[in-house]
Amino acid sequence: MADNSGTRAADPDPLLQLLLDGQPRTRNQLMDLTGLARSTVTGRLESLVAQEFVVPHEAAESTGGRPPARFKFNPAARLVLAADVGATHLTVALADLTGEILDSTTVPQDIADGPEVVLTALADHARALLARHPSGRLAGTGVGLPGPVEHRTGRPIQPPIMPGWDSFDVAGRLAGEFAGPVLVDNDVNLMALGEHTNQYAAIEHLLFVKVATGIGAGLISGGRLHRGAQGAAGDIGHVQALGHTELCRCGNAGCLEAVASAAALAAHLRSAGLPTETSQDVVDLVRAGDPVATQAVRQAGREIGTVLASCVSFFNPSVIVIGGSLSQAGDSLLAGIREAIYARSLPLATTELRVVASRTGQQTAVRGAAAMVLQHALGL
Amino acid sequence: MADNSGTRAADPDPLLQLLLDGQPRTRNQLMDLTGLARSTVTGRLESLVAQEFVVPHEAAESTGGRPPARFKFNPAARLVLAADVGATHLTVALADLTGEILDSTTVPQDIADGPEVVLTALADHARALLARHPSGRLAGTGVGLPGPVEHRTGRPIQPPIMPGWDSFDVAGRLAGEFAGPVLVDNDVNLMALGEHTNQYAAIEHLLFVKVATGIGAGLISGGRLHRGAQGAAGDIGHVQALGHTELCRCGNAGCLEAVASAAALAAHLRSAGLPTETSQDVVDLVRAGDPVATQAVRQAGREIGTVLASCVSFFNPSVIVIGGSLSQAGDSLLAGIREAIYARSLPLATTELRVVASRTGQQTAVRGAAAMVLQHALGL
Repeated sequence: MADNSGTRAADPDPLLQLLLDGQPRTRNQLMDLTGLARSTVTGRLESLVAQEFVVPHEAAESTGGRPPARFKFNPAARLVLAADVGATHLTVALADLTGEILDSTTVPQDIADGPEVVLTALADHARALLARHPSGRLAGTGVGLPGPVEHRTGRPIQPPIMPGWDSFDVAGRLAGEFAGPVLVDNDVNLMALGEHTNQYAAIEHLLFVKVATGIGAGLISGGRLHRGAQGAAGDIGHVQALGHTELCRCGNAGCLEAVASAAALAAHLRSAGLPTETSQDVVDLVRAGDPVATQAVRQAGREIGTVLASCVSFFNPSVIVIGGSLSQAGDSLLAGIREAIYARSLPLATTELRVVASRTGQQTAVRGAAAMVLQHALGL
Repeated sequence: MADNSGTRAADPDPLLQLLLDGQPRTRNQLMDLTGLARSTVTGRLESLVAQEFVVPHEAAESTGGRPPARFKFNPAARLVLAADVGATHLTVALADLTGEILDSTTVPQDIADGPEVVLTALADHARALLARHPSGRLAGTGVGLPGPVEHRTGRPIQPPIMPGWDSFDVAGRLAGEFAGPVLVDNDVNLMALGEHTNQYAAIEHLLFVKVATGIGAGLISGGRLHRGAQGAAGDIGHVQALGHTELCRCGNAGCLEAVASAAALAAHLRSAGLPTETSQDVVDLVRAGDPVATQAVRQAGREIGTVLASCVSFFNPSVIVIGGSLSQAGDSLLAGIREAIYARSLPLATTELRVVASRTGQQTAVRGAAAMVLQHALGL
């Protein structure tokens, strides 16, 4: 089993923390800013320079005499391997130490092919990407999966749409092939992390809601991902939708996912005679202006918004980001969600609440996977 | 307006953080453990000793020659003033720097008397307590109020059961009389903090639910109090209870508080001919074995548990603590809550979930008020 026991390095280096802002600093400045002994600063700088995380900074001008050496963070010191395993696609990417995506590949891939097939494909694409960046050393690997994951061990736990994956040692399978730790999480947590890191880094409390074949949420509390005790936080797909009794695949009745997911909508529209097999079919119909599909998506938004109103009262976020494939249907979904949230929430909790569409598009999860590895490797 | 902009001191002293465990340490040990320069350690120790937060520790034995000086944390260096303002009572207490309650006073006090009367009473009781501890210097004051509070400014915001208190500068009123910062929060947040600090300090994710005249929750995420964007997190009293349409004082229909609070129960039992004016009357009836009251409390537990099942799916805590006056009715409330949570939550989220009664009793909120001040003063 891979060492995957947390995303935060136990002892973040205080010099590295300072230098992450990109500003070059002298040894004396680092001593002043940290209060650390000269011998400590010298030793830690030597270690950081040896690892290439920090490099000497060439002074632009000379004022006579040799200027004191300055040191700065080196974002190119390592690469991060990031992967987003979806129900029907696989994205593999390389990022630098700022989380910037340098290169990526997206291919169709059925999760139901099982872990050996999917993770072999993931590793093949990763090696192809790494071959295009031959000088890069890996800081670690981050993987998002479309189901519950025990983050500590990197194993899926009874994932409903991932036959053959239950308890599979995903982290262990990849740790043998790639340098550095392998961290695994569910894709919605990583979407929350990716959207927060890239678009809302200053926001303390954020909720990311994925509306796709399933429905789930990722929570940011105090600027950190809130995974919960079993890593199961954000499971709003199986909260009961008011006034509904539809049987859900989880065995309960009236779950939000059984009422308002893309899968539920597609089934509902099929029964109304429309040709909807996938969430993309639903999105296409709405984009083509079909009134029945548009009305159904808006109503799904209302059902989701009613559940989110409770989440707003409970968690009091300042931003709710709506992502996932169904969010590409345009404004109908968001309008329905907003309508129900504002109708039902207490005024205080919605004073400054923004309900917005995801801005990071298809790369949200893979950016989050990179951010997860960076938090671990750099002690962010 | 008092400076009340956060509970964490900006720059916690690394030496003080180490010494808070109570172990005495030499200057060299502190240098080794922190990597700080000798001059930094010497300067900070001087400052901590001058403030009395740290005192020289007398060595028990001598091994020949003068042993190196050791230093240890001094919990008696300051007192903390902590107050819990309830709807019908007022508790004022003094704690030491470990949060231990040294002395306290509880008196009947109607919150509806307004802020001038109540805060004057609070200050009078505080001065009486301080007179009994004449050598004590104050680290700061923490106050819990039974309604929404903007923690940053220390002012209540549209509190429903606190006539005359809206936007009153509670922190400013007390800051003129007592040394140190004055921090204000709603009582349920402080109950969560008090129970967590005193009983569950190692638990990362905890939910404290107060069931009294109203219903509210306090959230601990990653070991820290999650207040939310407007400090409004945990407001589960106005989440819609499934299948209910009772009008709530907030203007919405079917709120949990309108269905399952002690106030709702008392009204319901009165309409059944029972003499219940207050939550204490309900508690007394249940304790006396009245079957109608017992059944009503158990059903209220089920309604609360149904809402908490959604919170479990969303937040995935490992402990839910039930407190508040109605929790003193015995096992009926807890049994109803457990029944509904386990019936409705997904198995993964309840694998290791404990639903327990509060252990800190009447002092939960005042202990939390002290903990809030300590986190601020000591940079915990």
